[in-house]
Amino acid sequence: MDRESFRKYGHEIVDWIADFTEHIEEYPVLARVEPGEIKGQLPQAPPEECEEMKTIFEDFKRIIMPGITHWQHPSFFAYFPANTSEPSILAEFLTAALGTQCMLWETSPAATELEEVVMGWLRQILALPETFTGVIQNSASASTLCALLCARERATDFSINRQGFGEGRGDRLVIYATEEAHSSVEKGVKIAGFGKDHFRLIPTGEDFAMIPEELERAIEKDKQEGLVPCCVVATVGTTSSLAMDPLPAIGEICARHGAWFHVDAAMAGTAAILPEMRHILDGVELADSFVFNPHKWMFTNVDCSAYFCRQPSVLISTFKVTPEYLKTDADQLVNNYRDWGIPLGRRFRALKLWFVMRSFGVAGLQKKVREHIALAGELASWIGNHPEFEILAPVSLNLVCFRYSPSQRLCSEEEMEQINKALIDKLNQCGEMFLTHTKLKGKFALRLCVGQTNTAREHVEKAWEKILREVKGGFH
Amino acid sequence: MDRESFRKYGHEIVDWIADFTEHIEEYPVLARVEPGEIKGQLPQAPPEECEEMKTIFEDFKRIIMPGITHWQHPSFFAYFPANTSEPSILAEFLTAALGTQCMLWETSPAATELEEVVMGWLRQILALPETFTGVIQNSASASTLCALLCARERATDFSINRQGFGEGRGDRLVIYATEEAHSSVEKGVKIAGFGKDHFRLIPTGEDFAMIPEELERAIEKDKQEGLVPCCVVATVGTTSSLAMDPLPAIGEICARHGAWFHVDAAMAGTAAILPEMRHILDGVELADSFVFNPHKWMFTNVDCSAYFCRQPSVLISTFKVTPEYLKTDADQLVNNYRDWGIPLGRRFRALKLWFVMRSFGVAGLQKKVREHIALAGELASWIGNHPEFEILAPVSLNLVCFRYSPSQRLCSEEEMEQINKALIDKLNQCGEMFLTHTKLKGKFALRLCVGQTNTAREHVEKAWEKILREVKGGFH
Repeated sequence: MDRESFRKYGHEIVDWIADFTEHIEEYPVLARVEPGEIKGQLPQAPPEECEEMKTIFEDFKRIIMPGITHWQHPSFFAYFPANTSEPSILAEFLTAALGTQCMLWETSPAATELEEVVMGWLRQILALPETFTGVIQNSASASTLCALLCARERATDFSINRQGFGEGRGDRLVIYATEEAHSSVEKGVKIAGFGKDHFRLIPTGEDFAMIPEELERAIEKDKQEGLVPCCVVATVGTTSSLAMDPLPAIGEICARHGAWFHVDAAMAGTAAILPEMRHILDGVELADSFVFNPHKWMFTNVDCSAYFCRQPSVLISTFKVTPEYLKTDADQLVNNYRDWGIPLGRRFRALKLWFVMRSFGVAGLQKKVREHIALAGELASWIGNHPEFEILAPVSLNLVCFRYSPSQRLCSEEEMEQINKALIDKLNQCGEMFLTHTKLKGKFALRLCVGQTNTAREHVEKAWEKILREVKGGFH
Repeated sequence: MDRESFRKYGHEIVDWIADFTEHIEEYPVLARVEPGEIKGQLPQAPPEECEEMKTIFEDFKRIIMPGITHWQHPSFFAYFPANTSEPSILAEFLTAALGTQCMLWETSPAATELEEVVMGWLRQILALPETFTGVIQNSASASTLCALLCARERATDFSINRQGFGEGRGDRLVIYATEEAHSSVEKGVKIAGFGKDHFRLIPTGEDFAMIPEELERAIEKDKQEGLVPCCVVATVGTTSSLAMDPLPAIGEICARHGAWFHVDAAMAGTAAILPEMRHILDGVELADSFVFNPHKWMFTNVDCSAYFCRQPSVLISTFKVTPEYLKTDADQLVNNYRDWGIPLGRRFRALKLWFVMRSFGVAGLQKKVREHIALAGELASWIGNHPEFEILAPVSLNLVCFRYSPSQRLCSEEEMEQINKALIDKLNQCGEMFLTHTKLKGKFALRLCVGQTNTAREHVEKAWEKILREVKGGFH
């Protein structure tokens, strides 16, 4: 592909993207394809000779597009959002064109220094302690794994890194989180070598948040058995129901028992940019590490996970390996982010954060987030006031967990699950919206999360009307 | 930023990128900034109100661009390349615009199925065994960590995941690689909990490749001491000198001792798309896992690391955690790549591989790679024939390790290092090229790697002429 073709197709793609964004509501939110349907349209071997971009781009539209689930559709209410915005998309385009690999300061000083600056901006808008230092990781899973590894190494004076686990070395370390904590915590517990048997699922209350007394009890019990509390992961906004673990109480317990305190606010953290919502992070000043993903609810393309910690020196000591070929003259003066996480190679991800924060301005970010929370609140009031629906968890921010609960007859939990599973399938198949489900204290719940950048009142209203229509029409 | 502005600045950025690509040789390869220089130009707090894209883009050009080290400059000879190409940049732009998060088949069926297909294409062009299955990871570091974790779990019947390391459980596992293996192996050894003390650096021969007899000896010694050989990481193309560990002999030793055999061909793997170079992978059919990075030398934007394994079931069993909120109806029928690696969230990275492989065609990819290898060979012959230069490692592909070695006088290794350090600094400061260094058996070596997409004969010639000029001019 020559440069003139790049220019030609670049312009064509800009217009295509602008049109796509404008008309995204004409696409079904959830892709309507069967397993194997896309694969079946693609040749099993690569072409020997070059193909024209015209052909490739046509195939993209014809074959790939029907298999895309539209995370940027304003009626995407599933999972947690991974929203984006125009300035972020443009920044990613520039990042791709520069093609820099930002493992060291020297390999692109601007990338390293911009990352320092924008992570400082994020720290400020979340009102995190000034003593926190930030770095971009590729996912909250990676960020939480970093925290678990730092906890492991701090607890053992870096002896697992040196000697590995062994008798009396690391084999008594225990990790704590709630039964509602994200699956990445268990994944990290396994990767870091603690083992699931050393992972305690602390019970939660009616609000699905950690009961600190239960944490205290579990720690005491473990200590009596000669085990060592290594790390507690508290969640601000659990995936199932946005439950908020009580950080001050948990932080105090961690401090008293010498455990690392990690706070996972992957999605909900963004809400803390609102002064009226900052209370969700009260107690974060007690944390050793904290993660939230601008790539979830802060209009920044996936991937961009913001990891903050109190002592970057622990992070660096945990990960640093310096072969001769990576030494540079500037090593003593600068941050080399390769030592701050798992991968060596790093994309230039600070650029999109810079574009987004400047293009929206703090006020602009706040406005969007405030709207999403208000919309979820309105929806919750509609659902809560309807006699045949039930809200299944407190609605603290932008997620509503609910179920259809026909009052005419008593149903078993199993029947309720069948009914609501049929309802959600019907809703998702219509293409006008995409919800996902969870289980809360054994109850099958529909989750509706308001977080796509362009979700407005009309989309939430339309969703609620559609739900009512399906229920009235006897969907099941 | 509204949609019309997106269109306006989208077009402006396309033209800017096209111009940038065309004029990239006018930029210094290595950024000419001092530590703190970029940071000092940026406000320490984010703007309260939104800013115009015009201002942001101007600042990008004025503040950020001077701090970029140009990995896409054809005279970037440093490290290993992270090259890119026009079709890859366009695909990344589309990926950013779609903003899909490809953790599950359902969350974008086309992304999952296209990944299956393009990984199949890669398998074919590298002539990997048909029994290998591929998945995209974010870095070779992550890929190698995946291999180490799979090795750990297979060796312990998945008991580390369940119970964690403990006495007689995992604490006797040993990992083997050479002293020339990539730093990510040691990093992975630490993360996975083996500990550096359980990591054996096998000696290498004059060619810097693993001596299989030394591996055998180390394994025998460990076994006599009650330790268990868990994994051997062989490198095809080490970072310092592109040494090729002998895969058939190592694979045979692994098989005999029941160790996981991982092959790290992060950069050099691409060369195996050439029939005349496929021999570098002879023996890979004995491997349990294999990694190479299309984002290094296959014209595909960072990040894109191709991990292949013989038994995806081991990978999945190592990583799988399935909370209710991630269950879908299609789970039994499809690949859910969230279970195939560390992060849950995944970008749609298959698209760029598809664009690149189709746009170049296999023949087009081969042509570029063949040219790079020929250029490095030519350079090596010029250097080798010059009385005042020394080639320090066999030139097998696209990397030349050498030093200036003035014949008039005998120099100590220390003096040689000083002289060559001064030479490389002078070369890099001039802005016309960027080389990095390493040490080979204690000798300070300049590394010149030919791998940027547009590197042509003139760039290598110019580099050599510049080196000769500096030497003649008495640079030190």
